[in-house]
Amino acid sequence: MQILKIGLLGLGNIGSGVYSLIKRKNKLIAQQSGVRLEIVRIADRSRSLGISVPKHLLTQDVNQVVRHPHIDTVVELFGGVQPTLKFVLTALRSGKDVVTANKALLAEEGDQIFRMAERFDRKIFFEASVGGGIPVIQGLREGLVTNHIQSIHSIINGTSNYILSEMTERGLDFKTALKAAQQKGYAEANPTLDIEGGDAAHKITILASLAFGKMAKFKDVYVEGISAIRHEDIAFANEFGYRIKLLAIVKKSGDGVEARVQPTLIPKHHILADVNGSYNAILIRGDETGDVLFYGKGAGQKPTASAVVSDLATLGKARSASSPMRFPRGHLTVKNISTILSRYYFRFQVIDRPGMLAKISDVLGKHHISISDVIQKERRTGRVVPLILLTHGVHESAVRRAVHAIDRMPVVRGKTQVLRIEE
Amino acid sequence: MQILKIGLLGLGNIGSGVYSLIKRKNKLIAQQSGVRLEIVRIADRSRSLGISVPKHLLTQDVNQVVRHPHIDTVVELFGGVQPTLKFVLTALRSGKDVVTANKALLAEEGDQIFRMAERFDRKIFFEASVGGGIPVIQGLREGLVTNHIQSIHSIINGTSNYILSEMTERGLDFKTALKAAQQKGYAEANPTLDIEGGDAAHKITILASLAFGKMAKFKDVYVEGISAIRHEDIAFANEFGYRIKLLAIVKKSGDGVEARVQPTLIPKHHILADVNGSYNAILIRGDETGDVLFYGKGAGQKPTASAVVSDLATLGKARSASSPMRFPRGHLTVKNISTILSRYYFRFQVIDRPGMLAKISDVLGKHHISISDVIQKERRTGRVVPLILLTHGVHESAVRRAVHAIDRMPVVRGKTQVLRIEE
Repeated sequence: MQILKIGLLGLGNIGSGVYSLIKRKNKLIAQQSGVRLEIVRIADRSRSLGISVPKHLLTQDVNQVVRHPHIDTVVELFGGVQPTLKFVLTALRSGKDVVTANKALLAEEGDQIFRMAERFDRKIFFEASVGGGIPVIQGLREGLVTNHIQSIHSIINGTSNYILSEMTERGLDFKTALKAAQQKGYAEANPTLDIEGGDAAHKITILASLAFGKMAKFKDVYVEGISAIRHEDIAFANEFGYRIKLLAIVKKSGDGVEARVQPTLIPKHHILADVNGSYNAILIRGDETGDVLFYGKGAGQKPTASAVVSDLATLGKARSASSPMRFPRGHLTVKNISTILSRYYFRFQVIDRPGMLAKISDVLGKHHISISDVIQKERRTGRVVPLILLTHGVHESAVRRAVHAIDRMPVVRGKTQVLRIEE
Repeated sequence: MQILKIGLLGLGNIGSGVYSLIKRKNKLIAQQSGVRLEIVRIADRSRSLGISVPKHLLTQDVNQVVRHPHIDTVVELFGGVQPTLKFVLTALRSGKDVVTANKALLAEEGDQIFRMAERFDRKIFFEASVGGGIPVIQGLREGLVTNHIQSIHSIINGTSNYILSEMTERGLDFKTALKAAQQKGYAEANPTLDIEGGDAAHKITILASLAFGKMAKFKDVYVEGISAIRHEDIAFANEFGYRIKLLAIVKKSGDGVEARVQPTLIPKHHILADVNGSYNAILIRGDETGDVLFYGKGAGQKPTASAVVSDLATLGKARSASSPMRFPRGHLTVKNISTILSRYYFRFQVIDRPGMLAKISDVLGKHHISISDVIQKERRTGRVVPLILLTHGVHESAVRRAVHAIDRMPVVRGKTQVLRIEE
């Protein structure tokens, strides 16, 4: 069993999420990856903590973490560029691997950090820096390794996407939608970094650097936010068949790349047009795989902490060449289909006669199947017509008995179509 | 540099794709992962090959691959369960790691294969077995490692999805859509495994086993195909606000799991409802990350070969504890925004006067900006009204000069809204 001795920098929202996740899921992670995570020390400068942590773990002295002789891995969740950069560089120089969620730090100082990591032969993982719990960094680094990346089109700022979705769906103006986002906790009191595109620019700088194997400069990324978008722009775009989304784009173009964050009109049928609310999505076009999309919650304590901890597991596995692979063990009990609970769609072929619907409903009722919706069309007495019923949740076994009975009724012709509904 | 000595079983569609990909991209893969891929021997029983391969690499004797003393990694692309199982077990017993795209083999005999791999401390990677070039297996194994998986809802058979999409969009009946799919190469001459759900059932068996850490039995998965779906079912479902998709589902339910493949009604606004044509998508719900979706081309030579080769790179990295991490090197040239080519949306605030549109068009024309669409509404002579123009592709620099000139025209009030369009 590989053991990671972890020093944690920061016990704010994400930091306390990481701490609590490691406590809750240490056994699952060890089972699935063969890595045990052990928190040795936590540096935090705030006095009030939302979670209870044993006192002996805590320190206010960052050096007690980044230079601690028994710590081999530093998890940086302070955020910000300065003085965090100094701490991360010290950690690397002291022989620690680093896991971070800090997109600003990597976008603005990645060059320096990566060079230091190479010099000291250290590893840096940063899955949580883009797309919260969505494993897009690993996908780009490993899953798409055979590709020359041609473009990335992404929705990577949940706050802006939430605001634009509310403006689109509920016809709100920008200011009202921003206030709603703030009330729901999707936007901060000072929302500038989100709505003016800076956060998305940090993230696309990281994605561009990984996609093209060279460091993109954050300052080279063109940035436009959404605060100038008026509701009428959304309405006019809609008339032309478009939605407006804040896209972060990087694409190959001649001998260079284009990299920009901008409110963009995209066709309504485009896969990114349906990414709504606070969700994120990253669409990557590779020359081998074609388009690959990663989608999920791009922020929040639990998804972000999950990405940090998955990096720790990956790091632990990478430390040992002999770490055995984990395979499924034992047998999974799959329930018989007759026991499942589902909503159903029935299409009966019935002879249209007065009282026919009542007869069928009666049989369904006897089997405790309750109807939610009905369509009966092209009614012509005495002719075979389709009768469509949707049910509330019911057991498959009851459905089978009921349909078996109904299929034998004289008013019913042919086999009933039975389909399941998932919401 | 880690070197993988590879033996290839099968040089059909995927096999020749893997061979050619390794030849074309060996340098890129080495740069990005520090692993060099070397094909030592290829076993193939067919006589006619679509690609040219040096004769000394070829053999008709499988044992020359699976027992070859200099081969450390066997890539199995024969397909089928027998006699492939025997070859894979021999490879593992002979100390080779295995990469395979064979979903039938893993779904039906995974238990035996995984036990053999554990016994001989070998690794097996099978990214290509589900979802072609979509890195969902790695996502599930590593990215979502902190999660108790609650459910997977997936569209993992491209043929069925193509047929249902054609039935939905073009109003075709099942047989016509199937023929169209066969003509376009999306369905095989014998389409049973695809349209009756067997292929999706193989894949969901693999996903279920990884998600829950126990082997699901292929025979326990309930399977219904799409051949009984009539166009009227799609039309009625549409009236209730649903689309019909062939879903492969696994979900936690009490002390067991439900696992099934079935045509399913899902709400139109559901993210899976917009997965059309031959695309695949896998929606995984974890207790930490919430919903995460992976989407892309689920089949085809290039995406599938890409997944196989990415497994080889991952395997190579896993062999060495000291393999240094690859970071971006040097600086990426990001083009100045003024040089980009894009379509544009303009919203001008203009005083509605005769000839006003002509004047604005004139300025745009002088800057070689060509208009594709116009909306002009709420026309009231002498009042300020919005004028919306969409352009064909044009350079940003020209747009800036034109808008600068237009914003100074006496008929124009306020700043012009300029947004970019991506198709």
